[in-house]
Amino acid sequence: MSRVVKLAVIPGDGIGPEVVAEAEKVLDAVTAGSAVTFDKTRFSLGAARYFETGDTLTDADLDAIRAHDAILLGAVGGQPGDPRLKDANIERGLLLKLRFELDHYVNLRPSKLYPAFGGPLANPGEIDFVVVREGTEGPYVGNGGAIRRGTPHEVANETSVNTAFGVERVVRYAFGLAERRRQKLTLVHKTNVLVHAGGMWKRIVDEVAREHPDVAVDYLHVDAATIFLVTNPGRFDVIVTDNLFGDILTDLAGAVTGGIGLAASGNINPEAAFPSMFEPVHGSAPDIAGQQKADPTAAILSVALLLDHLGLQDEAAAVTRAVESDIAQRGTTARTTAAVGDAIVARLQA
Amino acid sequence: MSRVVKLAVIPGDGIGPEVVAEAEKVLDAVTAGSAVTFDKTRFSLGAARYFETGDTLTDADLDAIRAHDAILLGAVGGQPGDPRLKDANIERGLLLKLRFELDHYVNLRPSKLYPAFGGPLANPGEIDFVVVREGTEGPYVGNGGAIRRGTPHEVANETSVNTAFGVERVVRYAFGLAERRRQKLTLVHKTNVLVHAGGMWKRIVDEVAREHPDVAVDYLHVDAATIFLVTNPGRFDVIVTDNLFGDILTDLAGAVTGGIGLAASGNINPEAAFPSMFEPVHGSAPDIAGQQKADPTAAILSVALLLDHLGLQDEAAAVTRAVESDIAQRGTTARTTAAVGDAIVARLQA
Ligand SMILES: CC(C)[C@H](C(=O)O)[C@@H](O)C(=O)O
Ligand SMILES: CC(C)[C@H](C(=O)O)[C@@H](O)C(=O)O
Repeated sequence: MSRVVKLAVIPGDGIGPEVVAEAEKVLDAVTAGSAVTFDKTRFSLGAARYFETGDTLTDADLDAIRAHDAILLGAVGGQPGDPRLKDANIERGLLLKLRFELDHYVNLRPSKLYPAFGGPLANPGEIDFVVVREGTEGPYVGNGGAIRRGTPHEVANETSVNTAFGVERVVRYAFGLAERRRQKLTLVHKTNVLVHAGGMWKRIVDEVAREHPDVAVDYLHVDAATIFLVTNPGRFDVIVTDNLFGDILTDLAGAVTGGIGLAASGNINPEAAFPSMFEPVHGSAPDIAGQQKADPTAAILSVALLLDHLGLQDEAAAVTRAVESDIAQRGTTARTTAAVGDAIVARLQA
Repeated sequence: MSRVVKLAVIPGDGIGPEVVAEAEKVLDAVTAGSAVTFDKTRFSLGAARYFETGDTLTDADLDAIRAHDAILLGAVGGQPGDPRLKDANIERGLLLKLRFELDHYVNLRPSKLYPAFGGPLANPGEIDFVVVREGTEGPYVGNGGAIRRGTPHEVANETSVNTAFGVERVVRYAFGLAERRRQKLTLVHKTNVLVHAGGMWKRIVDEVAREHPDVAVDYLHVDAATIFLVTNPGRFDVIVTDNLFGDILTDLAGAVTGGIGLAASGNINPEAAFPSMFEPVHGSAPDIAGQQKADPTAAILSVALLLDHLGLQDEAAAVTRAVESDIAQRGTTARTTAAVGDAIVARLQA
């Protein structure tokens, strides 16, 4: 019985196309000769497309993407300060629009320290945790505005919108994940300042915790959480947090586990009402684009998350093992983007 | 000619009274026999006072504090989860109320790595920067609310309020500081998501930058800034940022420079329309309170910031030197809170 997975591929800008090419190589290799086939459609989206047509993401694009089973994305966004992007916001108009329109309420970001890859901490210890970042609410909703713009009397507001519905579903997902891991869940927020949003998060975590008596639950303010991420990252198993705090914590987590070049992520709609989207945490890094300097490992690990999400656990595990063995054997000589992809493919086939 | 400085002292809760006692010792020692006298008034404020009287900060307290030239604060806040604090929020009702009522729009937080005190990074390099955190706007304004509280249909919002007036004055302060330091200023925000608030911050920094052609200006998203804080903290000189991002970055900065036990801060009203307030960045740590385990260094360095703010540069420098030499000679044997204070006083007198 063969299965066809319709995959939308969005290489994007900057280093996006380079890292996606390697991710696709690995995907092709791990599924070669298996019962599953990936039927890929490429979407030209990002700054390049915007320069050509003035569009970021049209309704037609969105409809076409919705008709897929999953999405693999490289990175989007032009050179900061590019005057041609003055009136565009590729991040909001494309990346965040996809997350919101496709109801990616679980932004899943695992952090693991591979011993061969020491990272910046002197005594990191074992690091293996997952941040479950809410993806469709919080300060990311775009409910801001300004009056008297550009004048000395400007007032610019941003509103963080949080719903019990939205918080409960991501909290339930995080508890489910904690059950399958080390049964430890940490809520990160700033309840002493953001008393309304924080209070609701706390209440819902406390409520759902009662259904999971075997999961140990604790709470940290976001500022304190950053301290622990550099002084005792081993204390974390599953972190559940708001959209903005999750953004900040996962970049920091990427840095302490050997760099953002290894950090993968999934933007997940657990009910599969919409296709989920897998992407490296890093951005488009236009300064090194086209030079084969980018590390494709984060994009390749995003393929592992994609496979896992699709129920292809064996293939996911094979990709992860190949990456781990590549990392363990990495020398100090720089390799091209393609060389890293090739090495991982070779390990897969070994 | 002798000068009398009226100092309000708020020891607060937990380890607050212990660290403030040492800070006062140092203040007394450095001003002994000099032309300046500190006339101190103690204010009993914090969780302990709340339990006794139900008050956090009354109008009478505030009037009395306003009549002082400066404030030295230890730490406030009870044991998290203490049921008696259920309806209280000491942080909002006392600490943030002081910052807002006394218009402490500059929250000044220096970060310096003392070589003897390696910190958690394997290769920290030289670290010496100052975060200028806005103190009276942003998501801290308390403009949030919730509907259908406690139900599955709850919606909880938090609004970040930002004004050109408020941003410009703190940005001007930061540029002034950068001029007196290494002429480098980094704006940290999240302009790609918080487009209104972020856009206004960016515009104002660009405008004020034109008056300071010798200051090199760059911009980082808050998530990227956390990466640099652990991979290349030496790149920073002056960071100017919003209230919430500043809260997060300074705890992280404290951690990478050897711990929050060394991080001092000033809540400053540069026009001196109201007394400025000096406090360690750390909290009240109720779990170790009363055990002489807390490091009073952050409180003592806050005294140096206080002296500097009052124009007593020689005294400020003497305290800083005494602290630096104490840090350089620190062995690995644990000292009591009082022993650290005494050692610093001894170095002052040497
Ligand atoms: C590009 C940006 C909008 C995005 C975010 O803030 O979510 C990125 O930082 C991320 O973490 O995926
Ligand atoms: C106690 C809390 C309200 C406070 C803040 O968030 O500002 C603290 O974390 C700080 O940094 O001084």
